[in-house]
Amino acid sequence: MENKLGRTLPADVMEQLQLTPFQTTEIGNPEVQRTAPQVRLSTGNDKVTNDLKKIIQENVHDGMTISFHHHFRNGDFVFNQVMKIIMELGIKNLTLAPSSLTGVMNDVAIEAIKQGTVTAITTSGMRGSLGDAVSHGLLAKPVIFRSHGGRARAIENGEIKIDVAFLGVPNADRCGNANGSYGDEAFGSLGYALMDANYANKVVLLTDNLVDYPNTPASIKQTQVDYVVEVDQVGDPDKIGSGATRFTKDPKNLKIANLVSDVITNSSYFKDGFSFQTGSGGAALAVTRYLRAAMEASNIHASFGLGGITNPMVELLEAGLIDKLMDVQDFDKVAAQSMKNNLNQQEIDASWYADPDNKAAMVDQLDVSILSALEIDTDFNVNVLTGADGIIRGAVGGHQDAATAKLTIICTPLVRGRIPSVVKSANTVVTPGSSVDVLVTERGIAVNPQRPDLLAQLQNVPGLQIYSIDELAELAQQIVGTEAPLEFTDRTVALVEYRDGSIIDAIKQRKD
Amino acid sequence: MENKLGRTLPADVMEQLQLTPFQTTEIGNPEVQRTAPQVRLSTGNDKVTNDLKKIIQENVHDGMTISFHHHFRNGDFVFNQVMKIIMELGIKNLTLAPSSLTGVMNDVAIEAIKQGTVTAITTSGMRGSLGDAVSHGLLAKPVIFRSHGGRARAIENGEIKIDVAFLGVPNADRCGNANGSYGDEAFGSLGYALMDANYANKVVLLTDNLVDYPNTPASIKQTQVDYVVEVDQVGDPDKIGSGATRFTKDPKNLKIANLVSDVITNSSYFKDGFSFQTGSGGAALAVTRYLRAAMEASNIHASFGLGGITNPMVELLEAGLIDKLMDVQDFDKVAAQSMKNNLNQQEIDASWYADPDNKAAMVDQLDVSILSALEIDTDFNVNVLTGADGIIRGAVGGHQDAATAKLTIICTPLVRGRIPSVVKSANTVVTPGSSVDVLVTERGIAVNPQRPDLLAQLQNVPGLQIYSIDELAELAQQIVGTEAPLEFTDRTVALVEYRDGSIIDAIKQRKD
Repeated sequence: MENKLGRTLPADVMEQLQLTPFQTTEIGNPEVQRTAPQVRLSTGNDKVTNDLKKIIQENVHDGMTISFHHHFRNGDFVFNQVMKIIMELGIKNLTLAPSSLTGVMNDVAIEAIKQGTVTAITTSGMRGSLGDAVSHGLLAKPVIFRSHGGRARAIENGEIKIDVAFLGVPNADRCGNANGSYGDEAFGSLGYALMDANYANKVVLLTDNLVDYPNTPASIKQTQVDYVVEVDQVGDPDKIGSGATRFTKDPKNLKIANLVSDVITNSSYFKDGFSFQTGSGGAALAVTRYLRAAMEASNIHASFGLGGITNPMVELLEAGLIDKLMDVQDFDKVAAQSMKNNLNQQEIDASWYADPDNKAAMVDQLDVSILSALEIDTDFNVNVLTGADGIIRGAVGGHQDAATAKLTIICTPLVRGRIPSVVKSANTVVTPGSSVDVLVTERGIAVNPQRPDLLAQLQNVPGLQIYSIDELAELAQQIVGTEAPLEFTDRTVALVEYRDGSIIDAIKQRKD
Repeated sequence: MENKLGRTLPADVMEQLQLTPFQTTEIGNPEVQRTAPQVRLSTGNDKVTNDLKKIIQENVHDGMTISFHHHFRNGDFVFNQVMKIIMELGIKNLTLAPSSLTGVMNDVAIEAIKQGTVTAITTSGMRGSLGDAVSHGLLAKPVIFRSHGGRARAIENGEIKIDVAFLGVPNADRCGNANGSYGDEAFGSLGYALMDANYANKVVLLTDNLVDYPNTPASIKQTQVDYVVEVDQVGDPDKIGSGATRFTKDPKNLKIANLVSDVITNSSYFKDGFSFQTGSGGAALAVTRYLRAAMEASNIHASFGLGGITNPMVELLEAGLIDKLMDVQDFDKVAAQSMKNNLNQQEIDASWYADPDNKAAMVDQLDVSILSALEIDTDFNVNVLTGADGIIRGAVGGHQDAATAKLTIICTPLVRGRIPSVVKSANTVVTPGSSVDVLVTERGIAVNPQRPDLLAQLQNVPGLQIYSIDELAELAQQIVGTEAPLEFTDRTVALVEYRDGSIIDAIKQRKD
């Protein structure tokens, strides 16, 4: 079975899971029935406990779906604490549905799979030993990779039905009012976790910082929380986010960032009130600073910046060059602090950010989106999930979601070491080429042929070398030579959903 | 059929509507399945229109349930605008499910009932000509009166299924992000309307103030809104709320307020970190100022104030005597302004405020609640809905909800003119006596016999005259004499729900 992008999908698995192949980036205007949780009533007076084991014993049962958020990133102490107790209790056959999996969770996740505690996973991403193990067939059922917006969609329409959500928070009161802004392990926006809080049948908060009732602002509300579990520590502050996202000094990244800025400022979208999302990649971050100079020079300000928020975006907000930051996640401590202090930095949940099954997601209002890539193929399809070795080592994140912008720019070095980024065929397609407008590499740019209007805007810009994407792929190949194609078994280890729930690609088990 | 309070309920209507009689104030810990709306997907780019008629024509059909909020109070221009078009279009058989009905809506509501446009109503209250007409049998089906928490419950579990909500807002952006804080008709908290925004299948915002995208803070979010209709004016700023709630000068009210303060400050609940809700009645408001003096003298501060927020509560917040105000509604402009400017005044929705089918409503955390009454009977049951003439002229409001406080104080003059407030049997019971602890009148107080502990705390307080409630009822009767009992037909014109959805009383058609 092939989808519209010519990606081969496993017919048997597709049928068994009642999945449909990717067709189009157009969502249309159908009506969708939302789902809702089952709520156990409480006056709120018996929520606090320090007996995590008892809570797990009473609420987690074989075959359930449990979830976590990844806002603590590599400083997370919650996932491992909870999963170890679940394994100890001999609970089996769980589906793991976190917003994403970070490296610090890998050892315990692998052990849980080996023990049969976890038999299914849906996540935004995985890396390191877990990605490697799954790529080599550790998990019997295929992992379902979903974008942040796709996860919100699946939770809101019941495709992901979370029985118990374990949500670590840097503060909570005795009834469960909590936010991500205060406490030693503050990380800022609770954007992804707000979905779990709103839709899981049971919500268990874990915190090391029980504060006076009522705790405000309450991003997570007492109406959503069943238990408040006091633990020794929910995370390692030093590993949650860097102090301030650092400005890249890599000349290649600076070159790319400069070119991206040129593309934006010479496009028709660079006008007063424009909006944009940058990722957290080295080049993407540098773009913000180049943009700033151009905005100041042209007396142009932005209506909003979206997505994972970083220090450079906060600087633009504070300089009055952006009106609002719409904040689903904070990548550094400066951004997290700013959300607490600046009323114009609004916390948004993953649905508001990017759920396509929605009365309007923020991503659909984006003018400019700057995204990275592991690979981009000559149809502009982008891979951010598997490496050149076919091993899972990335995350869908908000990539598909933000690619709905009017001007979606993929920025990547042409080659990384001996590995080409621009290729004839990507190992995995995460974001369809039809939603990508421009590729920027340090050697030059390529404009998607479906955008002759953009090409016209950019073709006489001094210093902007425009190639066809085939030319850039050939250039990359000239530099690194041709590798033998990777070998895979027939077994599907993961399926990649497009944001609308259709299947955009399958990842096969590595043969080695 | 009689319920636990001995109130006669119409067996046929009860059976037909599958309703259960009131049993107990205890809610317990059952599990409840929440409901969710049907969502029509949109990118958000086609929401703005000035053609209200077209929107109504396309979305409102015979037999549907439509809703409004009452945050504009008597300054509301939204209800009448919408209802007139609905009548003009000949739409019939609608259920009207507003958060409440204010006097300014009466004429149009009566006309809509007469035309068969509206054939069923659920509301918190009604007054004036509409209350009179319904009490005399205008509407074929009985009105269902619900508390603010009860309405939230019924919306969340699907008993009220809103097809289209028409929500007036003092500002909105083109995608539907809106709040109650900015604009000429700002009223502060959108607490009641947030339920409609979250659960209605279709949400139509009406505004006269289209602001730049994205509008923050977004109390109502673009993810919830289908249409943004531009109209000339959504309300009359002068009639939305007074500039600042005025301090009563009525000596009787001041006496009552002073006694209420004495009851509170001499009870075991008056300690550092206590919480309270006052209503907006003359005496209730004055209590806040007496309390302030006592709090300052005793060096006691409150953890939170709840409910409809008023100027005197804001003064306590600003003086550091209250940590947080939890704000479902603002009764005056000072309170509305304060929510915008003070991070410790948190907007809450009606579910968080008071839905009993919840993982914890704020009202269940209240220490002290000060409530008014039209009548209180010798079992401490309270009527806030019908007058001494048996005519509907009030609202359930948050009365039942806040009566869950540890110390619930009903304050009322013993008589009003020739009308007794303390009676053997109330015309209508809204709040069960078992949730009421103390009655305070200007002549003295009565303590519910189920609270000997409270009696012990209060009985030696200088100046606090303690009577049995029967003695107070007799005293009232001595003052005003005995009236002939009212005459009613057998027809039920309204049912009063307790906050859990059981029926606490029925209101019969007046015979005259």
